[in-house]
Amino acid sequence: MSDFLAGIDGPDDLKHLAVDQLPELADEIRGALIAFSHAHGGHIGSNLGLVEATIALHYVFDSPRDHIIFDVSHQSYVHKMLTGRREAFTDPTRFGEVTGFTNPLESDHDSFVLGHTGTSISLACGMAKARDLMGGDNNVIALIGDGSLSSAVAFEGLNEAGEFHGNLIIVLNDNEMSIAEDHGGMYDDLAELRASQGRAQRNLFRAMGLDYRYVERGNDVTALVRAFSEVKDIDHPIVMHIHTLKGKGLGADEGSVESNHWHNPDSAAGAPLNARKTYGMMAMDALAARFDSEPGLLVISPATPGSNGITREWRAAAGSHYIDTGITEEHAVAFAAGVARAGGTPVLATSATFFQRAYDQIHQEFALNQVPGTLLIFGGGISGTDNTHSGAGDIMMFGNVPGLTCLAPTSGRELLDMLAWSTGSADRPVAIRMPGNDILAAERAGSYPSFTDAFKFGHDDDSNGTAANHVNHVNASVRFTTDTYDDVYGERDITATTALGNPWARYTVTRSGSRVAIIGLGDAYPTAEATAHELDAHGVTATVVDPHQFSTLDTAALDQLAVSHTVVVTIEDGQLEGGWGAKIASYYGGHIRADAITNSGTEIPMRVLNFGARKEVTDRIPLSALRERYRLLPQRIAEAVLAVL
Amino acid sequence: MSDFLAGIDGPDDLKHLAVDQLPELADEIRGALIAFSHAHGGHIGSNLGLVEATIALHYVFDSPRDHIIFDVSHQSYVHKMLTGRREAFTDPTRFGEVTGFTNPLESDHDSFVLGHTGTSISLACGMAKARDLMGGDNNVIALIGDGSLSSAVAFEGLNEAGEFHGNLIIVLNDNEMSIAEDHGGMYDDLAELRASQGRAQRNLFRAMGLDYRYVERGNDVTALVRAFSEVKDIDHPIVMHIHTLKGKGLGADEGSVESNHWHNPDSAAGAPLNARKTYGMMAMDALAARFDSEPGLLVISPATPGSNGITREWRAAAGSHYIDTGITEEHAVAFAAGVARAGGTPVLATSATFFQRAYDQIHQEFALNQVPGTLLIFGGGISGTDNTHSGAGDIMMFGNVPGLTCLAPTSGRELLDMLAWSTGSADRPVAIRMPGNDILAAERAGSYPSFTDAFKFGHDDDSNGTAANHVNHVNASVRFTTDTYDDVYGERDITATTALGNPWARYTVTRSGSRVAIIGLGDAYPTAEATAHELDAHGVTATVVDPHQFSTLDTAALDQLAVSHTVVVTIEDGQLEGGWGAKIASYYGGHIRADAITNSGTEIPMRVLNFGARKEVTDRIPLSALRERYRLLPQRIAEAVLAVL
Repeated sequence: MSDFLAGIDGPDDLKHLAVDQLPELADEIRGALIAFSHAHGGHIGSNLGLVEATIALHYVFDSPRDHIIFDVSHQSYVHKMLTGRREAFTDPTRFGEVTGFTNPLESDHDSFVLGHTGTSISLACGMAKARDLMGGDNNVIALIGDGSLSSAVAFEGLNEAGEFHGNLIIVLNDNEMSIAEDHGGMYDDLAELRASQGRAQRNLFRAMGLDYRYVERGNDVTALVRAFSEVKDIDHPIVMHIHTLKGKGLGADEGSVESNHWHNPDSAAGAPLNARKTYGMMAMDALAARFDSEPGLLVISPATPGSNGITREWRAAAGSHYIDTGITEEHAVAFAAGVARAGGTPVLATSATFFQRAYDQIHQEFALNQVPGTLLIFGGGISGTDNTHSGAGDIMMFGNVPGLTCLAPTSGRELLDMLAWSTGSADRPVAIRMPGNDILAAERAGSYPSFTDAFKFGHDDDSNGTAANHVNHVNASVRFTTDTYDDVYGERDITATTALGNPWARYTVTRSGSRVAIIGLGDAYPTAEATAHELDAHGVTATVVDPHQFSTLDTAALDQLAVSHTVVVTIEDGQLEGGWGAKIASYYGGHIRADAITNSGTEIPMRVLNFGARKEVTDRIPLSALRERYRLLPQRIAEAVLAVL
Repeated sequence: MSDFLAGIDGPDDLKHLAVDQLPELADEIRGALIAFSHAHGGHIGSNLGLVEATIALHYVFDSPRDHIIFDVSHQSYVHKMLTGRREAFTDPTRFGEVTGFTNPLESDHDSFVLGHTGTSISLACGMAKARDLMGGDNNVIALIGDGSLSSAVAFEGLNEAGEFHGNLIIVLNDNEMSIAEDHGGMYDDLAELRASQGRAQRNLFRAMGLDYRYVERGNDVTALVRAFSEVKDIDHPIVMHIHTLKGKGLGADEGSVESNHWHNPDSAAGAPLNARKTYGMMAMDALAARFDSEPGLLVISPATPGSNGITREWRAAAGSHYIDTGITEEHAVAFAAGVARAGGTPVLATSATFFQRAYDQIHQEFALNQVPGTLLIFGGGISGTDNTHSGAGDIMMFGNVPGLTCLAPTSGRELLDMLAWSTGSADRPVAIRMPGNDILAAERAGSYPSFTDAFKFGHDDDSNGTAANHVNHVNASVRFTTDTYDDVYGERDITATTALGNPWARYTVTRSGSRVAIIGLGDAYPTAEATAHELDAHGVTATVVDPHQFSTLDTAALDQLAVSHTVVVTIEDGQLEGGWGAKIASYYGGHIRADAITNSGTEIPMRVLNFGARKEVTDRIPLSALRERYRLLPQRIAEAVLAVL
């Protein structure tokens, strides 16, 4: 076997090879990728499909002078191997040296940090526009997969490209599948174009004003070199539709490779807990049990169902009660609003990071319209993931939407109760933050008496968690009863409306103490309990509170806490700025401690310590390191409390 | 003239008319709309174009059993007139009784509150899906204009519709113009379809898998009744492309009507100040003066340029330095990131409410990528606008984005200085919140010595506000110098990075006092000054602080304030939850007042009073009423301060 790859430290070295040597290089790279993926994981299928196209792009074009923008950039491994980073894929001791996405900090050949779909065409339009304004003559190339093409911003980009006048090359990598399958009417169009070798009259790209060329043999590097050479330095926008085979080289799995996400440090370490799938499956089973009697119950997933526990088997069994809308978050949220308004019961499940795409629809079509629908937030909170998939902003994204009820269950049982309510008697839009690994660990350790039952959910006739049952459950808990509330801001009637009729509007005291109260939101609740135990060792018996939700403040509870506590600690596993705990600090800032006035004549405000994440996006930093950085550890929080007591 | 309209209290009354009486009804309605618009304003052009289509829809279909969803719903006046709300358009004493958009609280014939573009197809898909799941047989109709069609979510909806199997009718109202002009390659496709009477091979809708029908005479109510009757109860999705004349009936202005936005209570009252256009023009003039020497300087407007002071004349003069991308916020932000990465200098101007569409691109392509670009936020803060165009969430939307520098100028001069910096030496993404009417009023009153010069900007050679000048300007101000900062959360290095090199990172004391410090952000700064004057009358000399920005805290300034103040007041004209002031409450919550410990041995935290808007969306409530509701008035704030002193 040849050893061309070892001599390639950049595109110039590649250009020294003869065209007829490129197939051998492709074989080498493919072999290296397969070995790499077995050891390290990653989005291997899409990269294997693009080995030849990436070689051809770098052979024909002149990166970084010519800009190649990889959409999502999960398929940029070969690009990285050809631009000075091959050891990160060939030398096991250096695996993980580069990220799974393009990154300008790694190489001048990478234009952007990207991880969400569909923006490459817009970015390329912008680079082309700047070039034309400033008098450059380089090529700008966007490489986008057929799956990404269904995302909203990609269409906007295509539409803009259709009236652009300078050089712009859009390479459409058509491997006939998105993450699971392609969804949407335009995929019939792509199929016709493939079947007709690009000659079909029906042509989405020409309809949008774009020139178009089809390359059937998208894994033939010689054909690709010829095709790219013909459009190099073209003076107008063109779509190069190349037909590739995803997973090429994997043998029996060719063309049907499931996407493996790039391992983040925590999953690479083989984390034993997968709360995301566990609780996702629990929720899906609970819903499936109702499908026969509730025809309007519909689970909506804008792609990536598998990672949320919506398994292939579950989807098949759900039939018309499940819909994958493709990579279309904006549409999915508006679609859910339509389902709800027409009397159906939508449950929309996706990642916190992808919900960012639908920020406007969550505010307008969903919350402002007060449709009775449920959003299930997966992957919220800090984690060891890469910087384009952070969920650390979910509390601020959802918790500040007027009219949206945001719930943060602290057990599987509570998740199911909340879901039963939001899809049952609730008359409003609800977001539920799926519980994380800390909660799953606590449940497995038996800390929560309800765990055994909850985990059995779906296999237990009595576990359907009706709202009525839940209300009883909550009523049985110790709760604040004081309702006095008058602050300098006047009535908060809208907030009150959101709280009204919400069985989880009131906080629950799970442990009674004095002086110090610790309120832990959702996944941070186990940390609150552990902090109280830390404080026990120092003679401080702290109160622990489960707030259940982050859309309203239980001001009656906060008032009551002020009577016998001088320090309130809030803990959340997301960004502090714009988040939840600061609202409690703000509340106490304007709030007078009545007893303090009585005893000494001086008003002493409550001291509030907010713990959470910094305003930053982290890139593959292990969760344990983030917890140390943010002092989100029981011992560190206890130290801070003792310092101010 | 006939008087059919007076007899129509709902669609059933309309159905009693003969088809040949409908043209007379159309004339009546058109006359009423024109009279209404002269007295009240509103989106009159699009409504005049749709008189016949709306009559035909209600004549053929059976609302509310059949659902008609109006995209954006600014063109729903005729619909309102035919569904029991005609007096709000015919009786001058009742003008303003209904909103300018659909609203289920007004009528069962309105399915949604809508005000942003492109979601009608997705909403209709959802309603149709729910119908099919639950066994209904009603029609679902989305009516969408050609301008809205370019927005991202509309494409996602079309793509989903293309593989939908049940009844779904998408009426495309093609009046050949968006708000100003249509932008994008697909508009050539629409033109070909119009020219060929719908027979062109190139057909975007067929390419997306949809059935298609063309109606040339979109203002011929008889033709429309026939066309709609033919597709009523259709068993699959179809696009009905109707060609209408925007502004039909306005005579000389037919077909070229500029959109007038629905009057909100404040603008209807004839507000004398238009800070939005004033400062927008000021900024545009400053940029235009640099076009000759800076080829890469590019102003980007995703539609609605006029309301931001980007006039027709300015656009014409700007030439290639200006681009209207159509109604495409997601694309526009990614496009700006591309321009910046390729060495250009993008300035993207749009409303706070529309930036919501690009939340993900602001986080990812823009802020995470640290591209040197500028976002100009228009219409931020509370206002008397309708509930779908509220800007009250802009501080929370922008101020919490990691890596984004957010500036809030308090004068025209400062705006220009900030813009000169963000488009000059700044190496980072910057958002600038355009100053509002309170600032303009203060400048006109001469409160700010810089106003006269600043307002002259664009007509004064020396007023270009370079960053260097600005730094001198800032250095000349009184500032805190203490740098001691150590809180329980550890270093905030990312925040520090955002602050580093930002000439506005440090707060400015504009008035020295003691005990009480008032920090007013951006448009709320004049209220801070006025509050201090109120307190003067009570013997309290308050310190006033201009924070200049809302992306970082000047903790050194806050530490210094703690030495001689016991109450800090924050004022912002946006939503408190998730906003800016709560961060200061959070900071002081974890912060010990050093002097208080020294004097008494007891730690006394700073009392922080946060003033701002509730977590709610308001609908056409006058600004004066909102200020009363939120106590955002100098006297009310002073009262609150005196109560806790």
